[in-house]
Amino acid sequence: MELTVGQLAQQIGAELVGDGSGRIRAVGAVESAGESTITFVKDSRHVAGLKKSRAGAVIVGRRIEDLIKPQLIVEDVNAALIEVLNIFAPRLRPVPEGIDPTAKVARGAKIAKSTAIGLGAVIDDKVEIGENSVIGSGCKIGENSKLGKNCRLDSNVVVYHNCAIGDNVVIQANTTIGSVGFGYSFIDGAHRLIPHNGGVVIEDFVEIGANCCVDRAKFGNTVIGAGTKIDNLVQIAHNVVIGKCCLIAGQVGIAGSCKLGDGVVLGGQVGVSDNIEIGDGAMIAAQSGVTHSVGAGEQLAGSPATTKRDVLKTVTLMRRLPKMAERLQRLSERIERLEAAKDNKR
Amino acid sequence: MELTVGQLAQQIGAELVGDGSGRIRAVGAVESAGESTITFVKDSRHVAGLKKSRAGAVIVGRRIEDLIKPQLIVEDVNAALIEVLNIFAPRLRPVPEGIDPTAKVARGAKIAKSTAIGLGAVIDDKVEIGENSVIGSGCKIGENSKLGKNCRLDSNVVVYHNCAIGDNVVIQANTTIGSVGFGYSFIDGAHRLIPHNGGVVIEDFVEIGANCCVDRAKFGNTVIGAGTKIDNLVQIAHNVVIGKCCLIAGQVGIAGSCKLGDGVVLGGQVGVSDNIEIGDGAMIAAQSGVTHSVGAGEQLAGSPATTKRDVLKTVTLMRRLPKMAERLQRLSERIERLEAAKDNKR
Amino acid sequence: MELTVGQLAQQIGAELVGDGSGRIRAVGAVESAGESTITFVKDSRHVAGLKKSRAGAVIVGRRIEDLIKPQLIVEDVNAALIEVLNIFAPRLRPVPEGIDPTAKVARGAKIAKSTAIGLGAVIDDKVEIGENSVIGSGCKIGENSKLGKNCRLDSNVVVYHNCAIGDNVVIQANTTIGSVGFGYSFIDGAHRLIPHNGGVVIEDFVEIGANCCVDRAKFGNTVIGAGTKIDNLVQIAHNVVIGKCCLIAGQVGIAGSCKLGDGVVLGGQVGVSDNIEIGDGAMIAAQSGVTHSVGAGEQLAGSPATTKRDVLKTVTLMRRLPKMAERLQRLSERIERLEAAKDNKR
Repeated sequence: MELTVGQLAQQIGAELVGDGSGRIRAVGAVESAGESTITFVKDSRHVAGLKKSRAGAVIVGRRIEDLIKPQLIVEDVNAALIEVLNIFAPRLRPVPEGIDPTAKVARGAKIAKSTAIGLGAVIDDKVEIGENSVIGSGCKIGENSKLGKNCRLDSNVVVYHNCAIGDNVVIQANTTIGSVGFGYSFIDGAHRLIPHNGGVVIEDFVEIGANCCVDRAKFGNTVIGAGTKIDNLVQIAHNVVIGKCCLIAGQVGIAGSCKLGDGVVLGGQVGVSDNIEIGDGAMIAAQSGVTHSVGAGEQLAGSPATTKRDVLKTVTLMRRLPKMAERLQRLSERIERLEAAKDNKR
Repeated sequence: MELTVGQLAQQIGAELVGDGSGRIRAVGAVESAGESTITFVKDSRHVAGLKKSRAGAVIVGRRIEDLIKPQLIVEDVNAALIEVLNIFAPRLRPVPEGIDPTAKVARGAKIAKSTAIGLGAVIDDKVEIGENSVIGSGCKIGENSKLGKNCRLDSNVVVYHNCAIGDNVVIQANTTIGSVGFGYSFIDGAHRLIPHNGGVVIEDFVEIGANCCVDRAKFGNTVIGAGTKIDNLVQIAHNVVIGKCCLIAGQVGIAGSCKLGDGVVLGGQVGVSDNIEIGDGAMIAAQSGVTHSVGAGEQLAGSPATTKRDVLKTVTLMRRLPKMAERLQRLSERIERLEAAKDNKR
Repeated sequence: MELTVGQLAQQIGAELVGDGSGRIRAVGAVESAGESTITFVKDSRHVAGLKKSRAGAVIVGRRIEDLIKPQLIVEDVNAALIEVLNIFAPRLRPVPEGIDPTAKVARGAKIAKSTAIGLGAVIDDKVEIGENSVIGSGCKIGENSKLGKNCRLDSNVVVYHNCAIGDNVVIQANTTIGSVGFGYSFIDGAHRLIPHNGGVVIEDFVEIGANCCVDRAKFGNTVIGAGTKIDNLVQIAHNVVIGKCCLIAGQVGIAGSCKLGDGVVLGGQVGVSDNIEIGDGAMIAAQSGVTHSVGAGEQLAGSPATTKRDVLKTVTLMRRLPKMAERLQRLSERIERLEAAKDNKR
């Protein structure tokens, strides 16, 4: 794929400032972009770097003065970047429709004709899969689970029985959905598993990374709300209910029966104790440990997690400690002198 | 499956208080249970919620006064709950015995007749699998590894060579057993892998979640003791020895050559440094980092982990800091006045 | 495999002190070694244990006096240990060359003749695989990805499209390479995925553990430098560039666009925030959270990570707090007495 700068500007509806004749074949970062690469600048901090960049053109939100390079001025740089990346995305062979002859699809399964099922996949009885979904090689979908349309399960994803997955859901390789949760009762000297009769509900437009685990519920469902995005190696325990449009970064662990509102953002490696509620739009910094419920819009950090203000307060106090110790020492000396003076007076 | 409240009481040996004619089809939580659902109350804190619940019946450990709802009184609510959940567990098709024709079983492998081996599984030479075990699709079991009877390996589990797995062991999807551990010596300018000649021993009734890793030993064996339960995404490094009936929560990492006693409980995301010993019954709070050995029965928290008392002490001290700073200021002022008085006297 | 102590000494070029006639069949730890086992001692701390050990011989760097046991004296115990472990490594059947008939190899793929491709593997179009590489059962290699020679991908590894893997690379079971990273822009009320046009480059002699994730780049490549070793369950986000000969321990998470120099060591469960640079040879202690860039050779610990000296300072200050509080109390009492004396004088 090769386009002139002018053609690109036209395709994404950008105002072109400068020469439109250069040829663009890729999108790249300011520092590494070559002549046939278009780059982008999201904020003014990167303007200096841009002037040194060899990029053939740049997408900007506001015209930059004194720049020889052609500029594509757009309203929303993020949206324009997605458009341009899609234009230059690597062209892969389309996955052929139909069921690979080595896949094992139970007779009672209902598979839409436009669905693709890969090599060695196992589709159990009463499974339903909607139009245009792609099931990768080595996947297993357990009895009675449902997938909507336009879903993509990459290779070796395992979905256990009785899970309900909506439309436009992406699950990347080696992820496990619907495993039995970690619930035991100690009875007669042994840990006995609490049966997990419930399932998992994954709503529309959810995207889940690679090597994640979403456990099924003891009763009712573990739920991941529409539009929520989950990074790699994330653990979602039994009976967790996650709202809509949340962002859950890599290696987060959410313990049993937590409830997250809409638009919650969890940084990488965050841990949330069981039975916690986190309100809409709350943001938890990376590596925090959430041990009590969090109100809507709150921003927490630390383990145990507190408000950023509390974290700062603690840091400030710690910094004052050496001075306090010194001051104590000086006060002590002054008292000694006073005591000596008093004794001399006797 | 549908039973009357009276039939249920009889099946689990409960004393029925109230009307036994209602029909029950599921088990559920107090808050979400509908009329055809039986719920349960483990402690008195939840009694208030119960009075508002629409549940058709409730399992309790002690009779609750002033409750119109039928009550099933049992000695151990946890045990009764497991029984009732099993009664209403979803009925799945039994896995057919035998070896799927697409599986590749080495001639020298000994597979019990009642064992089921799924699509595309690979069973290497000298592997032995006992009665009634179920090997999921896409599993790989390496040379000379042994599985006992009544085991269940879910889809895409990989067991490397020379691993010994006991009876009644469950390993959930996408878990890896017997990978080479992370042991390198820096020789002639490069990290050279230390060969891992040892194996993994997993004793009876161990249950391991999804997407876990248990590394093989450099020599001897990595051992997981009987009855120990391991959650998802857990990392057990080479030469770790875990005792019996431990509970290891999600995303825990145990570094090389650690020894855990019996009944140890590790909360989610705990990390244990290499060569640490943790005594019987010790409990480590979530996200702790264990950097020194832990005595039997100790309860630690924090990173680095200390006793809960120490953690509390630190928190208390931090809370006192602002008051200490204030007090210092007041003392300083009093000393100034004393000094001024002394000077005036001269 | 059985060798006499004398034969072993000869094979590894060691100086033998003592009787060379004993028969050795394995390598083991000082504490657990039996008579037919050779053990090793890396430093003098373990000499005491050695005297009680039943091991049939010992590899040492320096002759130990008063030891009846035969000693194999070598220059580098670590290197000798690797040699001896290789001698007694379990003999596994060689993987047969060639493509398993159940594997699906695209016509346009170029597979060296000596390569082995396992049951149910999927090799997409334009893939290239070099001599003597072994692709395990259930693996998937996406379009246009290249593997060098002498590589080993264990069962169920997934490599997405456009990834470039060098020579002598090992990737253990259930690991995912080239998944789409966690990059979203919030546009018109929804998180929209930023297309990931880039790939992953894994250089020669890299070893990656089980159940890891390495995300592909948005543009350019996520890079893992030659000789770097990665433990299990590690997350490498999009556009991360890792230098040569780094050691990344289990459950580490490295967020987007970080740059690590050569020889960096990250302890278990370390988290690194996005866009951080870590200089050559820096060492980060387990469970640390790196939130700002780190100079070459620095050693950090804690979350947020600071120098070990700062961590120690904080610990020391915290320990002084109770004494400071006590001292404040005593100063206050002394001031009270001074004030009383002054008042009495009036």
